[in-house]
Amino acid sequence: MINRFFKNIDKPIPYEGKDSKNPLAFKYYDRNKKVGNKTMAEHLRFSVAFWHTMLGSGADMFGGPSFTREWRTASDPMQRAKDTMEANFEFLQKCGIDYWCFHDRDIAPEGANFAESCKNLEEMVGVAKKYQNETGIKLLWGTANLFGNAIYSQGAGSSPNAHVMATAIAQVKNAIDATKELGGENYVFWGGREGYETLINTDLKKEMEKMTRFFQMAVDYKNKLGYKCQFLIEPKPCEPTKHQYDSDAATTLYFLKEHGLYDHFKLNIEANHATLAGSTFEHELAVASAAGKLGSVDANRGDLLLGWDTDQFPTDIYSTTFAMMIILDQGGLGTGGLNFDAKVRRASNDPTDLFYAHIGGMDAFAKGLLVAQKMIEDKALSKFIDERYSSHNSGIGQQIMSGKATMEDVDKWVRGEKNPVLQSGRQEMLENIINSYIS
Amino acid sequence: MINRFFKNIDKPIPYEGKDSKNPLAFKYYDRNKKVGNKTMAEHLRFSVAFWHTMLGSGADMFGGPSFTREWRTASDPMQRAKDTMEANFEFLQKCGIDYWCFHDRDIAPEGANFAESCKNLEEMVGVAKKYQNETGIKLLWGTANLFGNAIYSQGAGSSPNAHVMATAIAQVKNAIDATKELGGENYVFWGGREGYETLINTDLKKEMEKMTRFFQMAVDYKNKLGYKCQFLIEPKPCEPTKHQYDSDAATTLYFLKEHGLYDHFKLNIEANHATLAGSTFEHELAVASAAGKLGSVDANRGDLLLGWDTDQFPTDIYSTTFAMMIILDQGGLGTGGLNFDAKVRRASNDPTDLFYAHIGGMDAFAKGLLVAQKMIEDKALSKFIDERYSSHNSGIGQQIMSGKATMEDVDKWVRGEKNPVLQSGRQEMLENIINSYIS
Amino acid sequence: MINRFFKNIDKPIPYEGKDSKNPLAFKYYDRNKKVGNKTMAEHLRFSVAFWHTMLGSGADMFGGPSFTREWRTASDPMQRAKDTMEANFEFLQKCGIDYWCFHDRDIAPEGANFAESCKNLEEMVGVAKKYQNETGIKLLWGTANLFGNAIYSQGAGSSPNAHVMATAIAQVKNAIDATKELGGENYVFWGGREGYETLINTDLKKEMEKMTRFFQMAVDYKNKLGYKCQFLIEPKPCEPTKHQYDSDAATTLYFLKEHGLYDHFKLNIEANHATLAGSTFEHELAVASAAGKLGSVDANRGDLLLGWDTDQFPTDIYSTTFAMMIILDQGGLGTGGLNFDAKVRRASNDPTDLFYAHIGGMDAFAKGLLVAQKMIEDKALSKFIDERYSSHNSGIGQQIMSGKATMEDVDKWVRGEKNPVLQSGRQEMLENIINSYIS
Amino acid sequence: MINRFFKNIDKPIPYEGKDSKNPLAFKYYDRNKKVGNKTMAEHLRFSVAFWHTMLGSGADMFGGPSFTREWRTASDPMQRAKDTMEANFEFLQKCGIDYWCFHDRDIAPEGANFAESCKNLEEMVGVAKKYQNETGIKLLWGTANLFGNAIYSQGAGSSPNAHVMATAIAQVKNAIDATKELGGENYVFWGGREGYETLINTDLKKEMEKMTRFFQMAVDYKNKLGYKCQFLIEPKPCEPTKHQYDSDAATTLYFLKEHGLYDHFKLNIEANHATLAGSTFEHELAVASAAGKLGSVDANRGDLLLGWDTDQFPTDIYSTTFAMMIILDQGGLGTGGLNFDAKVRRASNDPTDLFYAHIGGMDAFAKGLLVAQKMIEDKALSKFIDERYSSHNSGIGQQIMSGKATMEDVDKWVRGEKNPVLQSGRQEMLENIINSYIS
Repeated sequence: MINRFFKNIDKPIPYEGKDSKNPLAFKYYDRNKKVGNKTMAEHLRFSVAFWHTMLGSGADMFGGPSFTREWRTASDPMQRAKDTMEANFEFLQKCGIDYWCFHDRDIAPEGANFAESCKNLEEMVGVAKKYQNETGIKLLWGTANLFGNAIYSQGAGSSPNAHVMATAIAQVKNAIDATKELGGENYVFWGGREGYETLINTDLKKEMEKMTRFFQMAVDYKNKLGYKCQFLIEPKPCEPTKHQYDSDAATTLYFLKEHGLYDHFKLNIEANHATLAGSTFEHELAVASAAGKLGSVDANRGDLLLGWDTDQFPTDIYSTTFAMMIILDQGGLGTGGLNFDAKVRRASNDPTDLFYAHIGGMDAFAKGLLVAQKMIEDKALSKFIDERYSSHNSGIGQQIMSGKATMEDVDKWVRGEKNPVLQSGRQEMLENIINSYIS
Repeated sequence: MINRFFKNIDKPIPYEGKDSKNPLAFKYYDRNKKVGNKTMAEHLRFSVAFWHTMLGSGADMFGGPSFTREWRTASDPMQRAKDTMEANFEFLQKCGIDYWCFHDRDIAPEGANFAESCKNLEEMVGVAKKYQNETGIKLLWGTANLFGNAIYSQGAGSSPNAHVMATAIAQVKNAIDATKELGGENYVFWGGREGYETLINTDLKKEMEKMTRFFQMAVDYKNKLGYKCQFLIEPKPCEPTKHQYDSDAATTLYFLKEHGLYDHFKLNIEANHATLAGSTFEHELAVASAAGKLGSVDANRGDLLLGWDTDQFPTDIYSTTFAMMIILDQGGLGTGGLNFDAKVRRASNDPTDLFYAHIGGMDAFAKGLLVAQKMIEDKALSKFIDERYSSHNSGIGQQIMSGKATMEDVDKWVRGEKNPVLQSGRQEMLENIINSYIS
Repeated sequence: MINRFFKNIDKPIPYEGKDSKNPLAFKYYDRNKKVGNKTMAEHLRFSVAFWHTMLGSGADMFGGPSFTREWRTASDPMQRAKDTMEANFEFLQKCGIDYWCFHDRDIAPEGANFAESCKNLEEMVGVAKKYQNETGIKLLWGTANLFGNAIYSQGAGSSPNAHVMATAIAQVKNAIDATKELGGENYVFWGGREGYETLINTDLKKEMEKMTRFFQMAVDYKNKLGYKCQFLIEPKPCEPTKHQYDSDAATTLYFLKEHGLYDHFKLNIEANHATLAGSTFEHELAVASAAGKLGSVDANRGDLLLGWDTDQFPTDIYSTTFAMMIILDQGGLGTGGLNFDAKVRRASNDPTDLFYAHIGGMDAFAKGLLVAQKMIEDKALSKFIDERYSSHNSGIGQQIMSGKATMEDVDKWVRGEKNPVLQSGRQEMLENIINSYIS
Repeated sequence: MINRFFKNIDKPIPYEGKDSKNPLAFKYYDRNKKVGNKTMAEHLRFSVAFWHTMLGSGADMFGGPSFTREWRTASDPMQRAKDTMEANFEFLQKCGIDYWCFHDRDIAPEGANFAESCKNLEEMVGVAKKYQNETGIKLLWGTANLFGNAIYSQGAGSSPNAHVMATAIAQVKNAIDATKELGGENYVFWGGREGYETLINTDLKKEMEKMTRFFQMAVDYKNKLGYKCQFLIEPKPCEPTKHQYDSDAATTLYFLKEHGLYDHFKLNIEANHATLAGSTFEHELAVASAAGKLGSVDANRGDLLLGWDTDQFPTDIYSTTFAMMIILDQGGLGTGGLNFDAKVRRASNDPTDLFYAHIGGMDAFAKGLLVAQKMIEDKALSKFIDERYSSHNSGIGQQIMSGKATMEDVDKWVRGEKNPVLQSGRQEMLENIINSYIS
């Protein structure tokens, strides 16, 4: 086990059970415990987000870095990148997390020009591969950072500037190569700059055409490589861009349908992006799942009273329970996983806080998994739901749904009946049932 | 001219021009004035919303009616309905508005059972038709109220209850008949109850299947009738239902695509619904227009600091200008129009306030039309926009867009170039230009 | 025990403990169980909101009543009022709730004029008093409905119309009389119409002067009566009015300070009003409590993704735990209580849903009480907090806080020191600790 | 005139009038034009915000700098500071703006320790003073940056850490000294970190006591210096901190009242902070003005659909008109002014965009001033408002307001009257009147 940057954690975080008072132990996450037909680790497929956990500095729009990380102190950029990669695998091992995720620019410094940046990336991919081999830790997904560099300030794949768009395309090519080299099971697109600041300088239609080309070229390239990874798009409504084109699940699916890309992509749903879109995490999960498009999850939580991506660690048991119910109902996330796209607060400046944070997130999802599994087994909600919709299984309901009855038939039928009688939707009773499972 | 309920307005509202101080005159709306190749009336196709203007009572969630309307005083429901219809046409004539819109339950009282309600509706359609013939005023669109009655509290076309769903279908059949009889150029679907209060008692997929059947049956019926009106769906994210399925333009278009209904519908975009969806009016118009699906507009405005549908009259010249630019750019609204789905405030309890409100809305759009037309003629924005996107007309941009270049080609090209150079997006300059046209 | 309207509930709701599957039993609320030095009933002082529970019809802005309540069927208004009062006490007894709350217009129908309304109120107060005496149930607070009647559409105590303001004052006088007659421990002011729709027709300063007079007259009258009840103001930012003057706790306290009314009022904090104000329930509780002004609580929950008062029953254990920590920390609510200002959903149309809803709310607060008490006993958070602030107990911290050091002294001291070193705020660790107590 | 960094602007921006098509000319702002009894320059007292205009880099939470500014290229920090100061005065002269504002850390680089930072500040104050003398440009206000440095991540004046609090106090001392030396007419406090991230690690009461000491020490120091500048607090609800204590005007005024600081402070109201607080710019201005506490304005605009401080330049004529009406009504801003706390968009990467932006803001306020002055002269709104409140000038209204009538008197009077009759609030008519002045 690597033991260089987090020396105060001298062994992997243990599972100690619900009554432990040890803040550096799991209360619920017991990786080999069977829940239904899979272990907790197989269900949850946790992943560390390299950018937040390794690179997060505590900086925000009104202040510079507040963290001092030992692995970020080397003056040579490549050495710093290597130290950071080592810290990443040390952290993964000590947390007992099997997957990691990265952006190209996270793991390798930008060079003076594009070719140099690519060279740095290749070298760091080699470094990461070595650690993967040594530790057995795998890559959940890779992606390209098409939002940080100033050239992307007016869009990347949708940029009005052909040179910029070309650079975005080339960058994605290299990021796909890197992800393939590391055996990534998925590749993610998050279009932080694919959108507009104002319609008064924007040609919406042209930007959509560019996005279409951009995605199509990536699909073509992946196919040419014969690379079997799942492409994922991660919706977000705004921030940094005022209006992002992939604003939520339905909007993204519409874009894919409209432009002939539907079969090539699934969605990576993030909790905080859902709430910024004026929706709930579970709504976005449910929409994606109903379409057979729920591919992976960025597991975090937002603050519904704040209008930006706070990317807090998921700790709300209600939320993790709802999420796990949808995930269990669709038979798991397949090649996807639960990636902690979450960061410790600016005031949590001690590296040990990274452990508290991940432990909390893992326990919250483990508890959610346990509750969800039990509720599904007990048909705690589904029994009521099935009954609620049962009137369509026969009579006029069946005739309507089967396409047998026309509007005129239905009109005639209704005129011959008394007024309909409603059954209660029982929201309050069901909310109480959920509480009885959670607490 | 009818002259019974608004006797203090003894002639149609005149156009008096910008400097008039008469609050009962138009400052900008001059119906026969040519703007480009159409008159203002032809461009704007204003419509009165029967429900707000004739039936609005000033009631809100915390208080009962605050208006006393002479046309709502008859004790017999059918007489009250007839008086109200007369008031409607009197108001239309005096405002100089050519179109009106209604829900079935607006114009005719509900009877003791469905058949009786249908009979009332038929009778009132006859009354309305007579007024239409006498005045030359036309029906922009009709719709069915599938949200007011208690039976729809858990959905109408998506109800879990087969009897309720059947009733919704039958009601739509009769509303389509009524709209056809009145020569309605469009028929609107707004699914105020088509959504969920909570996912814990909901089967999302089954509800989508029901919605699909519901819409498909209406399409089939219209086709069978050989009725050429345009079907429109009006998106709204929430209220009354926590989450409505047709939450915004893109979501609705996705639903239509996914369920084979795309060709049969356009959208009726409402300003206040757009802002409730966390978007701008112009964004929703632009999305619908880019898809060739902008069919009609519910012209009002919301209060972005309030989280419900305030349905205020449109008075913001920036907003009406942006709207008219998009409408002019797509060559007008076709069979659609600008329907004032707006209500006077609870404190505006004088019937004359209805005139102030409509005059203000009409003038705001007339001014918006004038500004938009001038800006388009001057290429005030479009010249900059065209230049902004011009780098895709040749070189690598063209190769990318034409599909000639692969990712690998682009990668190679980028490696041979210097870093890209960006041109300013000029948002501030363009905002100043807009101000110079507006003020 | 009254047994007329809720015959399917034939005995008071029993406590059956955590593992009960009976939806009509308490899982946590065990009224005589001692928690610290008080019983659960003494801590929680639950109250039923007459308006929602007895009068709630399921109506919303887009639909009429969806509930049929047997106690609302009598055609004579006074008989209906009496039946409703009986149902109220039957419900209170069967739920095992000790307190109720009402608005004057809830319990007695409005008459043709003000005097008649007062007469109806007096009669119904007599009816209520009889039930109170028979059941031992008490009045937590009374209030006047100054928002429902059309005359209050432009304000009540702040109305620009002197006759309206006079009516509001007279109505409050009679409501105070009624509350006194029923032994109410508090009297509440919620100014749903005390605010403005638009500043363009408003004189803010004059409206503040009116509000001041209005409150002062109520204080004077209470004093003259020698009536010892606590006056409470209930903040809310908007709805129905665009901007209400008592928008949140701090704003209300500022108004009271500025206008010489501070000593005469405490606050009644509502969860949903807090979230509408862009704040959290616990923030508003904390602000009120820190000022010694937390008098009572309207216990409900809102939906942070919806912009109106959804008034849902409180079921979130996190929220009830935070609330109870603040309440325990200040030694309880004194004469106040936890009033369920909450309503069952429009789709929950069965009277039994009222029981589910109250049981859920009571259990959620009982669980919150148990968790809060344990966390306080264990110093689960407070130990960390005390240490976090300990540097002000000596040295330069003490000199600053005691007023001994001037700015110049501090400047000199800082120049002689090294840069400060920060300790982690440990938010994630503390969040995990809370989860370990809750789940 | 300085002519080094903005050479393409070779003379001060001219006034060319409404019909000019020159984007580098004023359409409305004519500095010496008399409006009422003052010139436009005297009314508007524009100020450049050093941090945004000189230091703004286009960076956001998802991307680094996108601007290249010639004045930020020197490698030596003090030389860079001096170049920037020169650019500042060049920009001020060329825009024809008379005032500027700064934070201590804007104008001088931080040194290795506090003493060194103070030394740098002193030197740069000398540089600035020289430019002020040469150009006649004045300092509107100075302030201390108590939010950027990592030590303030848990608060500055309210920090739980005594050393941090001491540093904040010392920093303010030196910032006051700097402001005094430059003849600043005001000194501003914005407490970006004075608040909490979570209540679970916070002692609200202790933090309030610290804030009180912090402000009191500044007051004492200013008095000791005999320095006559106005102290201003700038409210903001959140960002960077989840909850800031000075969240809006009323909350801030409550804090000042409660802690004996009321007489020593006025408010600096920012448009975007008002909208983040769930309120309007004009509401916050009106609250501050009604209390006699409107001291200065941070003139910008937010995006009501985005939940963070977008700090856009003010271009909405409605908003500038409402602001100027309130400012004119209180007789101007006294020592305060209109400070453009606004930044060009990330995509506006050309230094000339800084000119477009300030020209747009100045013209928007100049137009707002002209409209406001005309509406006030015409009593366009005030005539209606005065009539609306006139019923309190006699009869029962007067008796209530004068304190002559008791509740019982009013009750008796109301019982003798018929029901009150309401006059319309005329919101729609007044909105139309405003449009007739603006367009």
